[in-house]
Amino acid sequence: MKRILLTVEYDGTAYVGWQWQENGLAVQQVLEEALTKACGHPVRVTGSSRTDAGVHALGQMAHFDTTCRIPPERFPFVLNTLLPPDIRVQAGREVPSDFHARFLSAGKTYTYRFLNSRHGSALRRNTHWHIPVPLDTARMERAVRTLPGTHDFAAFQAAGGTAKTTVRTLESADLHFRLPEIVFTVSGNAFLYNMVRILAGTLAEIGLGRLAPDAFERAFVSLSRLDLGMTAPAHGLELTEVRYAPSAFDPASVKAPWVLPRAEEE
Amino acid sequence: MKRILLTVEYDGTAYVGWQWQENGLAVQQVLEEALTKACGHPVRVTGSSRTDAGVHALGQMAHFDTTCRIPPERFPFVLNTLLPPDIRVQAGREVPSDFHARFLSAGKTYTYRFLNSRHGSALRRNTHWHIPVPLDTARMERAVRTLPGTHDFAAFQAAGGTAKTTVRTLESADLHFRLPEIVFTVSGNAFLYNMVRILAGTLAEIGLGRLAPDAFERAFVSLSRLDLGMTAPAHGLELTEVRYAPSAFDPASVKAPWVLPRAEEE
Repeated sequence: MKRILLTVEYDGTAYVGWQWQENGLAVQQVLEEALTKACGHPVRVTGSSRTDAGVHALGQMAHFDTTCRIPPERFPFVLNTLLPPDIRVQAGREVPSDFHARFLSAGKTYTYRFLNSRHGSALRRNTHWHIPVPLDTARMERAVRTLPGTHDFAAFQAAGGTAKTTVRTLESADLHFRLPEIVFTVSGNAFLYNMVRILAGTLAEIGLGRLAPDAFERAFVSLSRLDLGMTAPAHGLELTEVRYAPSAFDPASVKAPWVLPRAEEE
Repeated sequence: MKRILLTVEYDGTAYVGWQWQENGLAVQQVLEEALTKACGHPVRVTGSSRTDAGVHALGQMAHFDTTCRIPPERFPFVLNTLLPPDIRVQAGREVPSDFHARFLSAGKTYTYRFLNSRHGSALRRNTHWHIPVPLDTARMERAVRTLPGTHDFAAFQAAGGTAKTTVRTLESADLHFRLPEIVFTVSGNAFLYNMVRILAGTLAEIGLGRLAPDAFERAFVSLSRLDLGMTAPAHGLELTEVRYAPSAFDPASVKAPWVLPRAEEE
């Protein structure tokens, strides 16, 4: 039995999200069907992140166990002939049998894309949040500078979140302006459910003048969702990268994060 | 009666191209149906460029005549409520009654996008030509430098082209590398049928080492299609911009290009 880790890119437009749902097709399901066919035995995959319906991934990570003899680096070639074109496997590697794509994640990068133009875009309709009113980019930049560091993000999660701790560390948060496109990139050790979409929605409302540029700082203290803006729509969000400590790939390592599953995270 | 000029963006994936075809839905047709509904009388539009099936447009230009009282700058708002999300009207303006979106075009810019990665992309599958073998970017850059200027592009058209003259002037031709993405941008006074796709296909074959970096220069002399590479697939191509001389918008001007319709162009 081998454990394989895949890097998976997908266009989330046609899916109910990463995870199995009653009401439609999940990326996980399509991937499992392809893997079951390729491996010749039933396969279940575990993703690093349960992306919502419409959310995209450039670098979702997912592991599975198999007894088949396909060399790990051949999985992209084999699977991409079985998968629909909106799901592409970019890499495969063998990992230790106690590796876990989700619990061992050491950090993630998300990208959120805005399109600040009068009329919506045909070509970017599935990847950008269209905001027709001009955004004050200086206000947004000021706000983004308050994000890096370790803060209590209790206010930055969808209602009903039950994560044991809401303290998270953001390593970086950046805005890139290629107007009318605005790209928000955020890297952190872990993210609460809907956290990036709340960050993006708040940034937009700061840019629109509805919230002050210190809204994030206020919410770190008040811990109140009411100090923040709306949850930005799913289709602007992309899971760009998932990082692991090099020791996660070391079969001899002790993997402490197993003790504390963070079940409520994105 | 007023003549209105629209700027139209579309994702060409779902269409048989700009122009009416027997075998499926054309962008022109969908736009005419929306305009007929909005204006309350039958409307025919004339586009600047007959893009092929799968080709995209950021700035297609199209004119039509109407007796309706919708202010020209309101057309984007009215039409975008009637159009599918993969077609968006970005601007509307009134033009002289003898303005012509196609014959008066003074220049166009096309963008062709390559994705040079081992495996295909889910997110860029409809906008980039995936080339799995590493391209020699230095060779491609050398070749691209030979393009600007006035040349006989007789070799650079699909078989059966009947344009009266095949001499064209390219104002600029550039490659931008954001690997694995390679973006080819070309601006010229006019383009022959399939010319940009032949330029892109030849660039790819130069990057692959199958053709020499002076392939374009040879073809300017030999005028032979055999000196060039394949026709690159349609879905990597975008009509980015169409330009008009300021005089085209002047009702008093004499519009000489009418004399020489260039019926075979893209």
